[in-house]
Amino acid sequence: MTCELVFVGTELLLGDILNTNAQYLSRQLAALGISVLHQSVVGDNPERLRQVLETALSRADLVMTTGGLGPTKDDLTKEVCAACFQKKLVLHDESLRRMKAYFAVKGVEMPKTNEKQAWMPEGAVIFANDNGTAPGCAMEKDGKRLMMLPGPPREMRAMFQSGALPYLRRFSDGVIVSTEIRTFGIGESAMAQTVSDLLDHENPTVAPYAKSGEAMLRVTAKAQNEAEARALLKPVVGEIVSRLGDKVYGVDVPNLETAVVKRLRQLGLTLAAAESCTAGLIAKRLTDIPGASDVFGCGVVSYRNEIKQKLLGVDPQLIARETAVCEAVAVQMAAGALSQSGADLAVSVTGLAGPGKDERGREPGLAYLALTDGSRTETRTVHTGQTGPDCRDYNRTVFASHALDMVRRYLSGRFGAVITFSKDCDA
Amino acid sequence: MTCELVFVGTELLLGDILNTNAQYLSRQLAALGISVLHQSVVGDNPERLRQVLETALSRADLVMTTGGLGPTKDDLTKEVCAACFQKKLVLHDESLRRMKAYFAVKGVEMPKTNEKQAWMPEGAVIFANDNGTAPGCAMEKDGKRLMMLPGPPREMRAMFQSGALPYLRRFSDGVIVSTEIRTFGIGESAMAQTVSDLLDHENPTVAPYAKSGEAMLRVTAKAQNEAEARALLKPVVGEIVSRLGDKVYGVDVPNLETAVVKRLRQLGLTLAAAESCTAGLIAKRLTDIPGASDVFGCGVVSYRNEIKQKLLGVDPQLIARETAVCEAVAVQMAAGALSQSGADLAVSVTGLAGPGKDERGREPGLAYLALTDGSRTETRTVHTGQTGPDCRDYNRTVFASHALDMVRRYLSGRFGAVITFSKDCDA
Repeated sequence: MTCELVFVGTELLLGDILNTNAQYLSRQLAALGISVLHQSVVGDNPERLRQVLETALSRADLVMTTGGLGPTKDDLTKEVCAACFQKKLVLHDESLRRMKAYFAVKGVEMPKTNEKQAWMPEGAVIFANDNGTAPGCAMEKDGKRLMMLPGPPREMRAMFQSGALPYLRRFSDGVIVSTEIRTFGIGESAMAQTVSDLLDHENPTVAPYAKSGEAMLRVTAKAQNEAEARALLKPVVGEIVSRLGDKVYGVDVPNLETAVVKRLRQLGLTLAAAESCTAGLIAKRLTDIPGASDVFGCGVVSYRNEIKQKLLGVDPQLIARETAVCEAVAVQMAAGALSQSGADLAVSVTGLAGPGKDERGREPGLAYLALTDGSRTETRTVHTGQTGPDCRDYNRTVFASHALDMVRRYLSGRFGAVITFSKDCDA
Repeated sequence: MTCELVFVGTELLLGDILNTNAQYLSRQLAALGISVLHQSVVGDNPERLRQVLETALSRADLVMTTGGLGPTKDDLTKEVCAACFQKKLVLHDESLRRMKAYFAVKGVEMPKTNEKQAWMPEGAVIFANDNGTAPGCAMEKDGKRLMMLPGPPREMRAMFQSGALPYLRRFSDGVIVSTEIRTFGIGESAMAQTVSDLLDHENPTVAPYAKSGEAMLRVTAKAQNEAEARALLKPVVGEIVSRLGDKVYGVDVPNLETAVVKRLRQLGLTLAAAESCTAGLIAKRLTDIPGASDVFGCGVVSYRNEIKQKLLGVDPQLIARETAVCEAVAVQMAAGALSQSGADLAVSVTGLAGPGKDERGREPGLAYLALTDGSRTETRTVHTGQTGPDCRDYNRTVFASHALDMVRRYLSGRFGAVITFSKDCDA
């Protein structure tokens, strides 16, 4: 079954709101094995909406709309959809009753304008709205189906789960299952080259992506059920992981910090961080993960040199001689964080996030990192190559990712394979 | 001039990524007075992409695409667009040179596959990519224009500003100018009620929004030129600011941290932070702002109780008696951060971000904050009311915002009005 999503609302065309409904519905439909081949956004204009709906109905088995079911004059989705299917609107008593009850709970009388929302296409399956006033519905004609859901995400999501999902399950012809292989330390092109022969696969498909300095591969299989889909995925995912080797930090792991927190927990080790230019970002990312307090207890944000000296014991003469952005300062910061925190490991970053150059004329995008366990210390120098006016965010993100990557590689080198699978992660 | 936006990428149809490019480009084009009447999303499928482009070109003067300009085989936007305009692809030497330089900075040789990205439609205007490898371009035929931008938002946005915007300004008929009034400490409904009579205005329009625990109002004027639009905005913005009073933390200021950093700089004051449950987020947000090192030098992430004692001098018996989540601990954390850092002000947070309850059965969404300048200490208790399984991010963001709000209110109370205007902000 193919589907087109049609989002109705001038506010989307003006960019006033972010279309989160698109991602939500696309994901839900993919999980049902329903192929979304097009998404369209159109304003509150009946003629353009009609044209978009006709195009959508000509190329998809199912058309789903969100938006335009409100009580005001410019909410016209129901009227236009009904006309497309030559249905008239009739008053749906149960919806009117629910709507009146909705207002009664708030101690308010229902405004007259809301009654419009209870007029539904004749013969449609009605979906009750537990979080607002507009009901949704689905109708069918000549093998085509048209479903309408409200625009506000909270109402739409609840109605999708309670009404649309049971309705759609009947038409689902199999499932689509995706697995994501996440890497660090390899570019998208180099990664794609390593697996180039697999990129032509049809089922499962293999597609490369890049985001925030990381490259990843998505492997997607279509099958009658989840077990069959997973069986198709398994050998391909295994082959890719073996080719990419230690560049892979996880399969179906949302990010580096999750992989690091999980691995630290498994090993019962604790980590501290001393951050200069990333200034809290490593700590923030680690503690985004619920339960991170078991493994990450201490961070020092030593954005200024005096703090590097006072809280981390960095030699002020070293800073005077070499500036704060050098390998030796990173090493002393990590050592200071380790001794202050009593953690098993400490990682540090000092660098130039940008956008400006430093006092020695060095370009941003340069950072020195260190990792120590007290007996062994490793360092890494990072050049992101990003120096433009907007480079700051990117550089900070990538520096922090390198710090996390150093930790996961350390844990891997000492204790074996570092690849983290989602199944354990959820545990 | 009318425009259709076409977003290319199977990852959008699968719901793997949120289409933030749609909102960004729609807003930018609205500001140019270019009417976006349709947005379409299509996968990496050349035949469907061709059909979508043909439909778009039949109903819009300008078609803009994002995505599908990467180095891999499934990146086909340029090939399909060029075919629509019957143009062949030719090697663009300057783009190839830039791309090689991009890799050289990283100390990596350019993979052979990337060369594909330097082949551009003959006669097109080329937009350089300062943040990645894929150039963008614009071409024209029979009065229709087709523009291609890369998919990754960071690359797309920078290229839009540096290349597409100057190109599009020639076609803009009038301008739309928006101003954003940002508040903290008032809900969206209460804010909207305060200005309800202004919400029916036609030019400028006034629209309320809510995001991450903050409410804001966007005031938008349409006029022949920017000066006229600003003249329309001025009295309405002034009226709203005066009604909302100290709830307003800035006009056209991107966020609380920018307002705080700017105000600290103006006053020559420095700030330190002691963070438990926000664990680096306050520090991270402050140092997102270039130049924050002048005013924010020290943060302590004391996620674990031993660190609260060791680095901040919090009384362990107090923690044993009251847990670490109480007002007295917040006060001691702020005092400790102040004395450790030598800063003028210190702010602290200790709380329950969630998702779980604490050992005393308290629900997440509770935090205690303190702000001290050494002689005066203020505290704040926050209940976000968010306790669900996904509450953690929201709670951490809102706790950090409250800490920043305490700082900006302190600076305001002591030194006068706190409202920050963007013009100064850019300085």
